[in-house]
Order: sequence, then C-alpha cells, then structure tokens
Amino acid sequence: MDVRNDIKVLDATIRDGGLCNNFEFTDEFVKELYKTNVASGVDYMEFGYKASKNMFKESEFGKWKFCNEEDIRAIVGDNPTSMKIAVMADVGRCDYKTDFLPKNESVIDMVRVACYIHQIPAAIEMIEWFHALGYETTCNIMAISQANTEQVNQALSMLAATNVDVIYLVDSYGSLYPENASALAKVYLAAVENTDKKIGFHAHNNQNLAFANTIETLSYGVSFLDATVQGMGRGAGNCAMELLLGFLKNPKYNLYELLKFIEKYMIPLKAQGVVWGYDLQYMFTGLLNRHPREAIDFTGKKRDDYSEFYKSLLENF
Amino acid sequence: MDVRNDIKVLDATIRDGGLCNNFEFTDEFVKELYKTNVASGVDYMEFGYKASKNMFKESEFGKWKFCNEEDIRAIVGDNPTSMKIAVMADVGRCDYKTDFLPKNESVIDMVRVACYIHQIPAAIEMIEWFHALGYETTCNIMAISQANTEQVNQALSMLAATNVDVIYLVDSYGSLYPENASALAKVYLAAVENTDKKIGFHAHNNQNLAFANTIETLSYGVSFLDATVQGMGRGAGNCAMELLLGFLKNPKYNLYELLKFIEKYMIPLKAQGVVWGYDLQYMFTGLLNRHPREAIDFTGKKRDDYSEFYKSLLENF
Repeated sequence: MDVRNDIKVLDATIRDGGLCNNFEFTDEFVKELYKTNVASGVDYMEFGYKASKNMFKESEFGKWKFCNEEDIRAIVGDNPTSMKIAVMADVGRCDYKTDFLPKNESVIDMVRVACYIHQIPAAIEMIEWFHALGYETTCNIMAISQANTEQVNQALSMLAATNVDVIYLVDSYGSLYPENASALAKVYLAAVENTDKKIGFHAHNNQNLAFANTIETLSYGVSFLDATVQGMGRGAGNCAMELLLGFLKNPKYNLYELLKFIEKYMIPLKAQGVVWGYDLQYMFTGLLNRHPREAIDFTGKKRDDYSEFYKSLLENF
Repeated sequence: MDVRNDIKVLDATIRDGGLCNNFEFTDEFVKELYKTNVASGVDYMEFGYKASKNMFKESEFGKWKFCNEEDIRAIVGDNPTSMKIAVMADVGRCDYKTDFLPKNESVIDMVRVACYIHQIPAAIEMIEWFHALGYETTCNIMAISQANTEQVNQALSMLAATNVDVIYLVDSYGSLYPENASALAKVYLAAVENTDKKIGFHAHNNQNLAFANTIETLSYGVSFLDATVQGMGRGAGNCAMELLLGFLKNPKYNLYELLKFIEKYMIPLKAQGVVWGYDLQYMFTGLLNRHPREAIDFTGKKRDDYSEFYKSLLENF
C-alpha cells in the first residue's frame, strides 16, 4: 500500500502515437491532452520529435515531428505547472547543434536521446550537448531484445560515466516477457547503483504485455514509466496510461480526468480510422523478436490471412 | 529453454466463450475447434456446462450449456485422440446425481466443479461423487480476489483431504496483479505439497493481465492453464490461447493450426456481432475488484460515457 515517490509517469501519446497519424493532431487535441495530463498528475509530457528539417520536409508531417519552440509554447505558454515537457531526439536524424535553444530560453525541460545500441557513442555526444545546454537528459536504448549481454553491459558502463539523468530500457519489438524485462531491469539498476541516475521502461504491446512488463520492472526499482493514452503508439502500441494510473497508489494520479479526455478525443480519433493496438500480426513479430514493419504493412493492407503471414515470417527468419 | 512436461493446457472457448453467445455455436464450429485443439497439442477441451435442466430450459440456450453425452459424441465420436474432454458443473446449478454416466460409459474425462469459496462443502460432495464415478476432477474456486486469507487456507486444507485432482485459482473479476496472482499461487502450491494434486489458473482479462498472470503463476509451478481462442470469454475474456501457445516452449504445441481456425471461424464470429475482450469498463470493475455485471450491461447498451460509468461505480462502492 506504500506510495513510491520516486515514480515519474511520462505521457508519450503525441510522440509514439504520432507515428500512427503522421503527427497530425489538432491543436485542440494537444492542448486538451496537456490540460488532462496536468490534472491527472502526469510528471512529464513528451510532445514529439525534434527531427532534422534537412532530412524531413516540414510540409510532409504534422508539426510534432519537429516540435518548434513556438509550437510548444502555443499549447503550454510558459508551462506554469509542475509537469515537465520532453521531446525526443533520434541519433542520426536530429540537427542537435542548431535546433536547440539553451534551456533557460526554452520551455522544454528534458531531451530524450533515442538510439540503437551500436549508436551509444553518438548518443553520448548528444547527451553531453543537451546537458551543457541545461536540459535533463535520457538515453533510450531501443530494440534491447536484440542486443547481447556484453553489448548491454558495455553500453551501460559507458552511460554511467556520462551526465545522463535517466537510462531507458526500450522493448521496441514488444518481445520481452516479464521474466526477461525484470532480468534486464536488474542489470540496468545495478549499473547505476551509487549514482543519482534513474532507470526507465518503455513498453510495446505486441504480446499484450506492455502494462504487465511496466509494473513488473517498476516492482524491481525502475522509476520512469512511459505510457500513452489508450496505448496509442506504433503498431501494437504502448502501455496504456489508464491502466498505469489505475495501478499506481499515489493519490496525485487522477484517472477520472483521463477518462473524460478519452471519451471526448480518443474515441473520435479511432472512429476517424487511426489504427493501433494489439493484434495477431504484432504478436507474431514480438514472438519472433523482430521489427514490426511487416506487421504494420499487413495492418495497412487490411489483410486477415494470419496463418499465411505467420508462415511467411517463419520462412524469412 | 526447458520444456515443462507437467504443463496441461485447457481450451475453455466453448464454455467461457459460450457466455458471450448463449452457447449457440454451430456444430461445424465446435467440430473444427475440436480438430484444431487436437492438432495444436491442447491437452483438455472443455465443451460447456452440465447445467440443470430443471433450472434452465433447454430451448432457451445452445446445447453446450447442457453437454448431453450424445451431443459431445456427435462431435468427437469416441474421441480417439490423446486430448481429454472436460465439462463444468456449477455448485447449486447442476443435477449431478442424475445427469452423469459412470466414466466408463461416457466420453467425458474430467468434471470441473465451480464454486464460490463458501460453497466448498457442497463442492467436495460433488467432487467425491464424480471421483466415485471414475472421472478426473477439479475444483475451481471462483472470485478468489474477494476471499480473505483465512478462508483460502481453510478451503485449501479441506480440498487437500479429498480426491480432487486439480485445484484452480480463478480470477473471475480480473482483479489480480501478477504479484497477487503469484502470492496466491504459492499458497495453493504449498497446500498440495507432498500430494499428487496439481494447481491450475483461470484468468480474466479485465486489466489486460490475463496472459501475464497466467505465465507468472506458471513460473511458480502452476501447471493447469486455461485459455480460450482469442481470449473469448465473459466480459473482458480470458487468457488468449494463441499467446499461451506462442509462449510455451514444448514443440507439441502448434500455433499455425490455431491461426487457421481463427481466420476461418473466429473472425466471422466477431463480424456477426459476438462481443468480448478488454475495454475500459472491464478495467474499472477489475480495478475495483467487483463482478463485471455492470460492465457487461454497459457494453450491451453500447455506452461510451466511460467517466460517468466509472463515477457511478465509485459511488456504489
């Protein structure tokens, strides 16, 4: 019945959910989600990516792929709340030296650096850059289910020596079972013992385990928890915020406010045809520990020949 | 990577899923499911209830509420397979003294006695009756999340002294988190230590944890695992068979055969309007540890005023 005051809940709906609708949320949607997150006690809200405008045309995506300072401010003003604002910067897809203001001129509080494990050196360069600018930083090591133990240990020991604030275990392929997620969480936690660094978990729901894995890693000491409203996120989606807030015992989290948002904004979004969430094709790619791109393609084509699809994945193993 | 040869998978699709469609499956559906279960390596298939014909009119339900011997035989013949046939008998809703043949005249292998914890004495009477007839027996203690520790211990010690073969932990309200499910599983397992009795788990998916709780209890030594195809079952449904077969390492389980059945029979069933599965209203009743009847009513009325519904549950706590 204890309250864990170290827990921080991060809403990644606009960022991971943006992968489902090309980041084309209305301003009203984002503004109401911001108000809802504040009222629900959410600790961080991620607004989207800071993607390179040299690599990606602004005209081809919604604005939350780029998170211009003025676009965030149009939603949050000076953000006169205790909720912090995060953005994500992908290694190799972000002009980080030109696209970030010093923290004292920005409404952004935290920059989350996403990388694959072989990109750790590049991630560290970015982390130190953002740290020098004054931001809180995270390193989100993606696709961790495909990394071997030696790589993981090396990456963690390199990160432990940096100024990064939070290291995230990211189950991009939704491939981890709770026993795997907790074993990895223990390795991450051990790597930052005796430091101020925290460990985070970002789940995908391919095997319908996003919520279960999140509360499993939480029970071992992971404290930064990503969730999205109704699990909205790429492919099978993420840990659902409503399940997580229902589980957490801290009275600062308020489920009721979130339900009003779901009714008014998420149900219409689904009705418009934006698709995400657990389905068999995602279970297959999770089970086989591979990228969901083929499953996303299967979904986009509205196929339902599951057995043929499964067979084709086995043949291309 | 080990194979647990003690694991037995039980398909409860017709029985728990029958609660979603009044047990009105076509013979073709049941026959193809039977063949699929055999081909997929499923260990037991539950055909339905043996409900009292004095209490329930046969004309008002599909035949699987009653599981007449000849109806099962019309599907399985003499069941010339290694898969066993189970039926469920509810305490207080079954004319068990008249409606069961001796095992050597029946194609049924196992009778599962379902009861609430205060009905244990009545359940034991039935279990001994079925045992004397020659059947394998289970005791499925429902709504365990509402029983207190003392009740659970007393029930288990009474059952340990009987001829029951398997005692089932049943999370009827989908209210258990993995930590609760595993704590209870340990109590059940300890109660049958030094006996030949086995422990089973039957999950509901109200908080999207049916699969997670199943594999969690499995890891502690629970060996009888209930699942249904695509989780078909009352309200939020059950642990999905496809997730469970994907997880189990024993090569005797075959996912591909199940996928063909899903394509051909489950997708049309859903298209006909048979409804089950995780949704917010079931999460609320799971979270509040109560019977899903109000959530089922909410679903039936196609309501989507989730926040009002949640508020009304809090007011009637």
